[in-house]
Amino acid sequence: MNAAEQATANIGVVGLAVMGSNLARNLASREGNTVAIYNRSYSKTETLLTEHPEAHFVAASTYEEFAASLSTPRTALIMVQAGKGTDAVIDALTKVFEPGDIIVDGGNALFTDTIRREKAVRETGINFVGAGISGGEEGALLGPSIMPGGSAEAWETLGLILKSIAAVVDGEPCVTHVGTDGAGHFVKMIHNGIEYVDMQLIAEAYDLIRQATGVTPAEIADIFAEWNRGELESYLIEITAEVLRQVDATTDKPLVDVILDQAGSKGTGVWTVQTSLDLGVPVSGIAEAVFARAVSSRPAQREASRALPGPSSVPAIADKAAFIEDVRQALYASKIIAYSQGFDAIVAGAEEYNWDIKKGEIAKIWRGGCIIRARFLNRITEAYAENPALVALVTAPYFTEAMAGTQDSWRRVVAGAAAAGIPTPAISSSLAYYDSLRAPRLPAALVQGQRDFFGAHTYKRIDMDGTFHTLWSGDRTEIEVTDSH
Amino acid sequence: MNAAEQATANIGVVGLAVMGSNLARNLASREGNTVAIYNRSYSKTETLLTEHPEAHFVAASTYEEFAASLSTPRTALIMVQAGKGTDAVIDALTKVFEPGDIIVDGGNALFTDTIRREKAVRETGINFVGAGISGGEEGALLGPSIMPGGSAEAWETLGLILKSIAAVVDGEPCVTHVGTDGAGHFVKMIHNGIEYVDMQLIAEAYDLIRQATGVTPAEIADIFAEWNRGELESYLIEITAEVLRQVDATTDKPLVDVILDQAGSKGTGVWTVQTSLDLGVPVSGIAEAVFARAVSSRPAQREASRALPGPSSVPAIADKAAFIEDVRQALYASKIIAYSQGFDAIVAGAEEYNWDIKKGEIAKIWRGGCIIRARFLNRITEAYAENPALVALVTAPYFTEAMAGTQDSWRRVVAGAAAAGIPTPAISSSLAYYDSLRAPRLPAALVQGQRDFFGAHTYKRIDMDGTFHTLWSGDRTEIEVTDSH
Repeated sequence: MNAAEQATANIGVVGLAVMGSNLARNLASREGNTVAIYNRSYSKTETLLTEHPEAHFVAASTYEEFAASLSTPRTALIMVQAGKGTDAVIDALTKVFEPGDIIVDGGNALFTDTIRREKAVRETGINFVGAGISGGEEGALLGPSIMPGGSAEAWETLGLILKSIAAVVDGEPCVTHVGTDGAGHFVKMIHNGIEYVDMQLIAEAYDLIRQATGVTPAEIADIFAEWNRGELESYLIEITAEVLRQVDATTDKPLVDVILDQAGSKGTGVWTVQTSLDLGVPVSGIAEAVFARAVSSRPAQREASRALPGPSSVPAIADKAAFIEDVRQALYASKIIAYSQGFDAIVAGAEEYNWDIKKGEIAKIWRGGCIIRARFLNRITEAYAENPALVALVTAPYFTEAMAGTQDSWRRVVAGAAAAGIPTPAISSSLAYYDSLRAPRLPAALVQGQRDFFGAHTYKRIDMDGTFHTLWSGDRTEIEVTDSH
Repeated sequence: MNAAEQATANIGVVGLAVMGSNLARNLASREGNTVAIYNRSYSKTETLLTEHPEAHFVAASTYEEFAASLSTPRTALIMVQAGKGTDAVIDALTKVFEPGDIIVDGGNALFTDTIRREKAVRETGINFVGAGISGGEEGALLGPSIMPGGSAEAWETLGLILKSIAAVVDGEPCVTHVGTDGAGHFVKMIHNGIEYVDMQLIAEAYDLIRQATGVTPAEIADIFAEWNRGELESYLIEITAEVLRQVDATTDKPLVDVILDQAGSKGTGVWTVQTSLDLGVPVSGIAEAVFARAVSSRPAQREASRALPGPSSVPAIADKAAFIEDVRQALYASKIIAYSQGFDAIVAGAEEYNWDIKKGEIAKIWRGGCIIRARFLNRITEAYAENPALVALVTAPYFTEAMAGTQDSWRRVVAGAAAAGIPTPAISSSLAYYDSLRAPRLPAALVQGQRDFFGAHTYKRIDMDGTFHTLWSGDRTEIEVTDSH
């Protein structure tokens, strides 16, 4: 065959592990798509071909064949383990691709790596797009939520293909051009951070109900299934009910009771907190969720700490149903805070990196395909549609009203957990954040006073402009300083 | 003069801003020391000479003169703004110094920069020591706490000089060889992280007492002064009383009420949390303290959030004295947690970077000179002396007993704050951490179940070895997997 005859594929996938294979199958299942596939070891390519004879695949055993099988502009989706592997594949592709072609990294890259790679690849004339893809294995196969960055030029070609495979909600595909260079991976990172809190909040809600009322995991599965018909409706609540209902075949116990209680992580939660710290955005909920997993995974410390004293007496729960409803409200309120903090990080990231990110669109593409898909994302889209300059999500009328309805329950839950010795790091932290946000005065003024005392770090005043310092080790008069030191 | 005649100084200081000048004066005030001084602009050098004719200074206007004025092995302490300035000075000094000489960076460098610099300078045969110095301006002049890293060889010469200027507690100078390369700056960073929580905890205690009981800042100053005679005795409690007692001359109001309640920071708290996240150590208290400053410094969000609903009704405080005592106990318990988390980070850092850090020695050198100096550091030293392999500080008998005595009060305070709408992010977070640590089972098991459901992330079991996955989208049987994916 000559090159023109070979070039029958309109999209290619490099890396055929579970996510890559499923995305390749998803792509091949859409009308008009033919998918070039390449994997470092050809055996995986063969397996995919054999297992899915129905799919429109063109197998390539070298990068040259892969490039030759793609019509121009060539579009390749890289699905390999994030890190050095990604750089090696990009390097190989830039050698066989031409200016105008598009390389898409669909892995979980750190957005600063994506910024670096986009800059380097752009110099070759090839487009580089970092795209966050959420939805796990099933989402990859049936329709994920996709968060592509990169240039507007690349989006023109790529958008059509991505729209064809994304999840669809209310007729709208869950994909949008997030912003330039690393914007897509940045937003995907924040998505994962929110996922961490969402999971931790649900876990705390389960733990509270179980420990305080003594109901079984199967009963809590029913409670969660019920919650999933209301404002908490979400994929995570849905699957939590499934997990809690699962009975272990070996022991006949609830599966949740035989799973080792040490939570692992893949690192995107850590990135979210580290990045938000650089941006000065308080994402306390995400941090507490990441730390909760870290505490769980320190078995030696936990073993040594088991005998630490707990509450002298634990007040009994008078009305179980009322308590469970309080927990539901606390979960809802905390969840709103988690999203409010997550969107703050998006706003700050957009400002720092000059991305024009439409917050409402982000909420929209998270409604389907991804792990944090939830009914209330529609309310977030509406809030930003109503007021694109909204300074805090929680201050949108819908959410303020939700806080009014939930906050007394929330307070009872946090107070009850403290009294009973049940750890609720994320639920408690969210409430403390909420009360900090609405406080007319914060004791930060005292902190400034302390800093001025021991380090002459100066302070501002509420009643006049300028920067001031009290001569603490002198006569304690106040002086105005011109440059802070 | 020839070189030998010129070489009259046994230590030099580069960078004569406040910290550098004060350290130079401190050095010059000690028997037998003559201090070479250098500053990029000579006017600062002249000012120091003029203002302190009593000091044994040798002024240098070039790096060559500076080097010539030092006896060998030459020892220079760099006190310039951390960052590029430090690299420039190191570069200049390595050109005029010889193998065996010692360059000390006494600024607040990030420990990974110190590791990098130590490695680079070592190749020239010159010793490079990153030394954390705490104590602010006054500590620099009268006796700081010093945390040097670097080689054992450098410590042999440097140790004597540093011991001569450090703070002294119970006859022991507050300086020790922390470990190699970046160990000193690492431990100084953790020190600063603990300082963040300590300050935040005190600020929350003040806010709780003031808001819940209505007593004045001056009255709270008396309460803190009283606390400073007990187990909370510390520099930060002492100066907080001073700050709270201060009356603003312009308005005749308490100074704390005219200071703008937006807390600034210099970044070391952020570093501590970011580093601890990399190390997998939950430092939730430090994170909450850093985030509390961040929340305070977002005026637009706070303004917009002021109308958010607070508690429908706030229970009255029946017994003010009992409440204040509860707050004292909550502060003490939370402070123990802060140190426990901080020492966990030190242990993890030592493991990661192969430093042989003596935890008890660290507590010892923090007893004087530095911002977090406190009576109870003696208890930490004792705890690690009794059991150097202690896996969690809070499990040392002395601290476990302290928790037994404080935890009911602590729970009442957290519960009361939640009910009253007073934000206590650090106090609440510390309690949640404590209850997580001692929990026989954590809902992390449910998190693992969720992760296995949506991402096939697998889980371990409590009753058998191996790694498992439930076929959630299949027949829901459990399979053993050989490699986690």
